[in-house]
Amino acid sequence: MPIISVEGPKVTDVEKKRRFAQDLSRAAARYYDMPIEKIILLVKENEPENVSVGGQLIADL
Amino acid sequence: MPIISVEGPKVTDVEKKRRFAQDLSRAAARYYDMPIEKIILLVKENEPENVSVGGQLIADL
Amino acid sequence: MPIISVEGPKVTDVEKKRRFAQDLSRAAARYYDMPIEKIILLVKENEPENVSVGGQLIADL
Amino acid sequence: MPIISVEGPKVTDVEKKRRFAQDLSRAAARYYDMPIEKIILLVKENEPENVSVGGQLIADL
Amino acid sequence: MPIISVEGPKVTDVEKKRRFAQDLSRAAARYYDMPIEKIILLVKENEPENVSVGGQLIADL
Amino acid sequence: MPIISVEGPKVTDVEKKRRFAQDLSRAAARYYDMPIEKIILLVKENEPENVSVGGQLIADL
Repeated sequence: MPIISVEGPKVTDVEKKRRFAQDLSRAAARYYDMPIEKIILLVKENEPENVSVGGQLIADL
Repeated sequence: MPIISVEGPKVTDVEKKRRFAQDLSRAAARYYDMPIEKIILLVKENEPENVSVGGQLIADL
Repeated sequence: MPIISVEGPKVTDVEKKRRFAQDLSRAAARYYDMPIEKIILLVKENEPENVSVGGQLIADL
Repeated sequence: MPIISVEGPKVTDVEKKRRFAQDLSRAAARYYDMPIEKIILLVKENEPENVSVGGQLIADL
Repeated sequence: MPIISVEGPKVTDVEKKRRFAQDLSRAAARYYDMPIEKIILLVKENEPENVSVGGQLIADL
Repeated sequence: MPIISVEGPKVTDVEKKRRFAQDLSRAAARYYDMPIEKIILLVKENEPENVSVGGQLIADL
């Protein structure tokens, strides 16, 4: 039941999501020495006006 | 000020949300031995293409 | 695979944790209309100097 | 790389977001004694039917 | 009930925590146009072997 | 500035952490099409009495 959460910008290509889910889940299964079926992934997509780096909104960069 | 966050699929029935909020908040008030007014709940609803179990997107199951 | 996370003060009574895990997981199984086996709970325990309400550390109240 | 996450209701005024990002990031840079460029902020906006206080949905208050 | 969570390295000076809690909570009260009493802050302190930037553990930098 | 958070049991082997950080960060850099330097990872380690699956504490399994 390890849980991976990822926060980042929106990605619309579902094929990339499939590969990302595979890559992260395999890495976690190896790290925790558990079957991959136990690994849960949540991808969170943030609007550029809701994220800042160094006090600057991504929407303003 | 205990905070409960729940990640899961979208539920559209607001009546179910009302009951869920009651159930979780009462359980937390009992557990922490605090008045229920102190309990905060956040429900997060995820798209099936943004969640995977065992490396497989929920959208693909 | 719904995931419940709870943030609150430390509770040392494991029997209370057992009941809390049961209460929350049953409520979530009902809400999501899923078998209880799918429900994951994480309890996070915070030091009173690392939590504030209204700008005041819990440790100072 | 300190990360600030804020959960609250939606705010549509982007100028307020700019100032909020500045205020939080400066406070974190001072607290951690790091350059402001290292501070990341995520603002999460929740629907009133997905938040409860004391077991009552915000949407019902 | 807005909630601010901060992830960063451990800070042992409680006086700095007091000021940080004040700074963040005031900024959030202004942003959300709510009384400061509604603002909750959680500070999370991470070990340098449990954080990486660019694939490198902070403990190795 | 994508952020990966992982919740799971404690792993004491730092060499495994190094590899895990590399694996996850590379996968995220590829997914987001960003330089790996932008990827932040937080590993959270939970006590078995603070996690439950299906309403059962991991500590009781």
